[in-house]
Amino acid sequence: MSTPSSLQHLIDSLRVLPGVGPKSASRMAYHLLQRDQTGADSLAHAIMTALATLKHCQLCNTFTESDICEICADENRTHEQLCVVEMPTDLLMVEQTLAYHGLYFVLMGRLSPLDGIGPKDIAFSRLLERASDGIVKEVILSTNFTVEGEATAHYLAEMLRARGLTVSRIARGLPVGGELEHADPSTLAQALVERRTLAG
Amino acid sequence: MSTPSSLQHLIDSLRVLPGVGPKSASRMAYHLLQRDQTGADSLAHAIMTALATLKHCQLCNTFTESDICEICADENRTHEQLCVVEMPTDLLMVEQTLAYHGLYFVLMGRLSPLDGIGPKDIAFSRLLERASDGIVKEVILSTNFTVEGEATAHYLAEMLRARGLTVSRIARGLPVGGELEHADPSTLAQALVERRTLAG
Ligand SMILES: [Zn+2]
Ligand SMILES: [Zn+2]
Repeated sequence: MSTPSSLQHLIDSLRVLPGVGPKSASRMAYHLLQRDQTGADSLAHAIMTALATLKHCQLCNTFTESDICEICADENRTHEQLCVVEMPTDLLMVEQTLAYHGLYFVLMGRLSPLDGIGPKDIAFSRLLERASDGIVKEVILSTNFTVEGEATAHYLAEMLRARGLTVSRIARGLPVGGELEHADPSTLAQALVERRTLAG
Repeated sequence: MSTPSSLQHLIDSLRVLPGVGPKSASRMAYHLLQRDQTGADSLAHAIMTALATLKHCQLCNTFTESDICEICADENRTHEQLCVVEMPTDLLMVEQTLAYHGLYFVLMGRLSPLDGIGPKDIAFSRLLERASDGIVKEVILSTNFTVEGEATAHYLAEMLRARGLTVSRIARGLPVGGELEHADPSTLAQALVERRTLAG
């Protein structure tokens, strides 16, 4: 007695999803087949549609259904600033602040030597080319403040400064409404180091 | 600026998978699109193939690509015993023991009032019909020893005994090679209660 081949193939295929091991793949397969065949069918079609329609914006590298995404095509935005983020979700977070009116570049990842992700696996060379268009003046590095995000920012800063660009990094510090009593010590330390002189 | 609709639809569709919330759905979608388009394509096809080819065995209710599964079609097995398990994976575990030669019935779930899963959501009536074929003499309840598996076993035992069938439950006790020193107290207590008289 063995598992029917199409069931085994489904279980194996679910393991392409990040964080899904053999046990949860099997649990997912049974759930799809036993409890949600409609959802399973719609998932299969959503994958095929996404693969067929999504591409990378030629300017900012985010996912888009056109050659150039909505933001890059927006004439009203500042073309002198380029905000570099790791993922499209980060871009959405910055947009939600309504505090930024420049353009973006989405790396689609971060340097992560432990996972075998080096400069060639994310869009570094495309960023360097993009930032060297003669219009961009400042590159704002907005990768995460994780070990990998920081390493990515340092690496990029060096390469971009070598091309004569102004490079900045978003600030670390206490959150708006944050109390010193509840800040973690390293964030508070950074808030001290990165203190701003107030205009008198 | 909004997420392209085919990307948003993929993220939403991934949430049909058990245990996948909005954050991991988004992580999964980016992984499929950015790092493993081949895997994504093969996943979509595996889902469609599984949906198209798998059905429930007419006798034991497990997933199969035929009307009757390999085990139920095997003339060499004992037709008087029916081992009831929750899921196909449990059936495979019992088969691996090589200690059972009867037939099976796969409930495809367990009673779980908290999740809204009642007798009508799992194959109870089909089991009762199957066990009443006049050939089956003993039903061996092999649901898990979880709260839900136990409740399922109790419920089934009552209904099956009312039909004049012999109903048994797999034993709880110490594992083979198990030491009292390392057993958890409730398992040890059950091992005492379910002690067997040894032939002299
Ligand atoms: Zn763009
Ligand atoms: Zn069968």
